[in-house]
Amino acid sequence: MKILVTGAAGFIASNLIPRLLQRSDHVIGVDNFFLGKRAYVHKHPNFEFHEFDLLDLEALTALVTQAKPDRVWHLAANSDISYGTKYTDFDLKGGTLVTYNVLEAMRHAGISEIVFSSSGAVYGEPAIMPTPENYGPIFPISLYAASKAACEALITAFAHNYDIRCWIYRFGNIVGPNPTHGVIHDFVLRLREERTKLVVLGDGSQAKPYVYVEDCLDGMEFGIANARERVNCFNLAVEDQTTVREITDWTIEAMGIDRASIDVQYGDSPRGWRGDVPYVKLDTRRMTALGWTPRLSSAESVRRTIRDTVEQFRNGPLS
Amino acid sequence: MKILVTGAAGFIASNLIPRLLQRSDHVIGVDNFFLGKRAYVHKHPNFEFHEFDLLDLEALTALVTQAKPDRVWHLAANSDISYGTKYTDFDLKGGTLVTYNVLEAMRHAGISEIVFSSSGAVYGEPAIMPTPENYGPIFPISLYAASKAACEALITAFAHNYDIRCWIYRFGNIVGPNPTHGVIHDFVLRLREERTKLVVLGDGSQAKPYVYVEDCLDGMEFGIANARERVNCFNLAVEDQTTVREITDWTIEAMGIDRASIDVQYGDSPRGWRGDVPYVKLDTRRMTALGWTPRLSSAESVRRTIRDTVEQFRNGPLS
Repeated sequence: MKILVTGAAGFIASNLIPRLLQRSDHVIGVDNFFLGKRAYVHKHPNFEFHEFDLLDLEALTALVTQAKPDRVWHLAANSDISYGTKYTDFDLKGGTLVTYNVLEAMRHAGISEIVFSSSGAVYGEPAIMPTPENYGPIFPISLYAASKAACEALITAFAHNYDIRCWIYRFGNIVGPNPTHGVIHDFVLRLREERTKLVVLGDGSQAKPYVYVEDCLDGMEFGIANARERVNCFNLAVEDQTTVREITDWTIEAMGIDRASIDVQYGDSPRGWRGDVPYVKLDTRRMTALGWTPRLSSAESVRRTIRDTVEQFRNGPLS
Repeated sequence: MKILVTGAAGFIASNLIPRLLQRSDHVIGVDNFFLGKRAYVHKHPNFEFHEFDLLDLEALTALVTQAKPDRVWHLAANSDISYGTKYTDFDLKGGTLVTYNVLEAMRHAGISEIVFSSSGAVYGEPAIMPTPENYGPIFPISLYAASKAACEALITAFAHNYDIRCWIYRFGNIVGPNPTHGVIHDFVLRLREERTKLVVLGDGSQAKPYVYVEDCLDGMEFGIANARERVNCFNLAVEDQTTVREITDWTIEAMGIDRASIDVQYGDSPRGWRGDVPYVKLDTRRMTALGWTPRLSSAESVRRTIRDTVEQFRNGPLS
């Protein structure tokens, strides 16, 4: 089986590609290194990497038409929510238009399977928690989440009209090796520079389900193998939540910093930044009913990721 | 109060603008005449009309910044669902990107109210009928509806981040004077040319709620006056449905054609075209609870519109 992965130098894809290659798939990756890192690009005889921007529909269509992959894992996206609030066309271009291009290239080349990394952020600030997949209305509060909702809608419309099968996963916070952003990544890099002060966005009460990336990928692959509707949509999360205050304390501890010697400054409001959803709890029963549950809890995922990240960035930021 | 109306030469807006002017508002209209007709542009001392494409963000921002309207009625869109299936970037550009531009221009100029014409098509083929506003998941089956869902998500995200209040109306099939498209418009124009044969898309069993445009505009204005959340979203429909078979028979009758002398050819499937949702029933209880109900039933709306349309197109198509 031949697979195309977008965002191939990013966090999720760089963890996925070695797994795909273990089953001796031929894998093709695309990234423009906007968020992805050259250090995360896999080297393997069955892996070919292409550097270009997915906004280039012509280049993308040419690649997809020539390679004719059996399946596309479309993982490319901006993943920095606050960035998308500053530059209002950022998620529109890097999320919505790129996803349209991926679908259009697939339609052109007759490719019939797409796996998409959506987000629990599409629910906005939902009235029901834990929030199930059939929750409505979908009123996102960030341009990042608006783009994810727009991508989902494009995917289901293409699926209906052009004989495409799709797996849409609404992620909790995915953590693990090869981060490009996120609270643990930021804390570790900032604490390397400054061991006596840490400024935290939000009051630390923010609580979200953190999913270890290997669990996330297990769940995605399990869904592909076992859910065979035209449109398959699952929350991908864990049942417990971890607070930013816990992440702060555990990171300080893992960096070998004495808690008494560091001035941790929290914000006044639970919202870390405009468009942030401070309390997230996703209903995971649909995945459970399909037969899959994550191995690690949120707390375990966070603790392991803090260890991974301290180790991975021991010598400073990666490029 | 100063109001900006997009799609000002289109069906809904050309019915709205005379109403707005009765309350001596200053009204500014924009249209590019892609679907809108010059014949539908209102002439009035308090109405100024600008011809340009809303994809031109610079022109739009300049206009909005200079005019500083109190409210935007954003009614511009492609309304031909099958067209959007043939040209896959059509609704993306004319719907999603245009709506982003409208919101971005509003953000730039500090405009804080937007009224948006969405569609019951966002529900795709829903498992629950009549379908309520909080129905999920939102899996549209046409690129038209995907764009409406994307626009809604952009609007709620801008509303949250940039202090904008929005009214999102998910329409049934709106009918009345000044049509630019739709089954009645098409039947009347085709029966003018050919009185012995009519080819109908779909098997005629398609059943949808048809809303008279004056009811639609009453409902929208009632919602603006009485629903004052940051995000206000309502189905705008009627309780009964009309079938395409009924519309066919009533139009033939209104054209003075003997039913026995015309060969009406129906399709095999209820779906009129790819992406069409053949059976639509929208839950109208949210509008009813707010205190508003339409005056005309679906059947009355259709019959009146057939009469209007036969009269309006007596001398042929308008430009």
